[in-house]
Amino acid sequence: MNNYKLMIQYDGGRYKGWQRLGNGENTIQGKIETVLSEMVGRKIEIIGSGRTDAGVHALGQVANVKLSENFTVKEVKEYLNRYLPHDISVTEVTLVPDRFHSRYNAKDKTYLYKIWNEDYTHPFMRKYSLHIEKKLHIDNMVKASQLFVGEHDFTAFSNAKSKKKTNTRTIHSITIQDNQGFIDIRVCGDGFLYNMVRKMVGTLIEVGLGEKEPEQVLTILESKDRSQAGFADATGLYLEGISF
Amino acid sequence: MNNYKLMIQYDGGRYKGWQRLGNGENTIQGKIETVLSEMVGRKIEIIGSGRTDAGVHALGQVANVKLSENFTVKEVKEYLNRYLPHDISVTEVTLVPDRFHSRYNAKDKTYLYKIWNEDYTHPFMRKYSLHIEKKLHIDNMVKASQLFVGEHDFTAFSNAKSKKKTNTRTIHSITIQDNQGFIDIRVCGDGFLYNMVRKMVGTLIEVGLGEKEPEQVLTILESKDRSQAGFADATGLYLEGISF
Repeated sequence: MNNYKLMIQYDGGRYKGWQRLGNGENTIQGKIETVLSEMVGRKIEIIGSGRTDAGVHALGQVANVKLSENFTVKEVKEYLNRYLPHDISVTEVTLVPDRFHSRYNAKDKTYLYKIWNEDYTHPFMRKYSLHIEKKLHIDNMVKASQLFVGEHDFTAFSNAKSKKKTNTRTIHSITIQDNQGFIDIRVCGDGFLYNMVRKMVGTLIEVGLGEKEPEQVLTILESKDRSQAGFADATGLYLEGISF
Repeated sequence: MNNYKLMIQYDGGRYKGWQRLGNGENTIQGKIETVLSEMVGRKIEIIGSGRTDAGVHALGQVANVKLSENFTVKEVKEYLNRYLPHDISVTEVTLVPDRFHSRYNAKDKTYLYKIWNEDYTHPFMRKYSLHIEKKLHIDNMVKASQLFVGEHDFTAFSNAKSKKKTNTRTIHSITIQDNQGFIDIRVCGDGFLYNMVRKMVGTLIEVGLGEKEPEQVLTILESKDRSQAGFADATGLYLEGISF
């Protein structure tokens, strides 16, 4: 039995997210499983490191799959890239120890949120970033972002659909970079609740627009009230990488 | 009378090129003229620096338009960006002297050609680059590219549709850069015949694939035979900038 680790990139725009759903729903996991199932001639399930929501992109999603056939990593990669749709790519396939599990072994995840902050649309990145015309106040966003760092109960920054045992998560770092008209927000943490990054970024955008004070991040965290945080569109969000 | 200079970016994917054609053809010039005509309530014509073919993109197209109304540059820019489709953006509007003419005053043009040279599709750039899976031999491409530099008769690198007085053009420089999986080819010259950049790049790609020797560039130039050069898809080509 070989355990293959897949590095995956996708344009999430036309998918209902990572996780396979019922019959024929358009999901990234579903697409990859279909191709692998065709490759081996039976139903295959893969394990993803984390679920991305509908419309969310990935630069460094990780999944693993166990196959009893002795395919080389090159064969698996080539087969997948030949038959997957063009908005999903497998950038790397490696053999990993049998005990490797993409979800259980995932330590930290980094999400990237791209905001295009000019007064005109970016013709090439319009589907891969959030366009905000009004100039954002970056210093205040940085100030606000640092209040997320550390261990907190993120109930106020999650969606009611989230049914985890605990809503406490640790954010290791948040960086905000001005990058040639883009504002790149990177959030690294040990785990994220449903919609958590989008609610955090949405709140940071409100701070950047002057609609909220940076200090309100703390008040919202403490409130545990789901109605107070902002909410940013999936279009600018990427799962950038996972550490194991 | 005000003379406005427009800096324009576009995703050329769904357009029949820059130049306005007959009734209702989908062109970038046509789209911009329609919006300006609606702004002033009469038919407006703009002057573009150069025509880009169907499917070719632009990062720095330049056009100018004369209007008798006293619109501020801000008003013109905002109106255009509000009503243009999202794949065309006006990044800058400035007032220029009455004698400024985008086409007559254009000195040099730089085209960028982006090749994605990995064995998997780039999910986000698949419509904005040419995908070549086989590793290109960059050193040979550089060698070949330098044979284009200087003044040459580019008949062999033009399309029969080209009906210019002379087919002699001067290429100032060609650079080829390895850029994180992309190969970026920049061609700067005083003017380009119909399809000339695509035929030059197509030939460089054949050299990179080992199908042609670098020295063949000279033979093809001398032959003036249109059937010998390669031809690269429009999808990776951008008009990057124009100097005046």
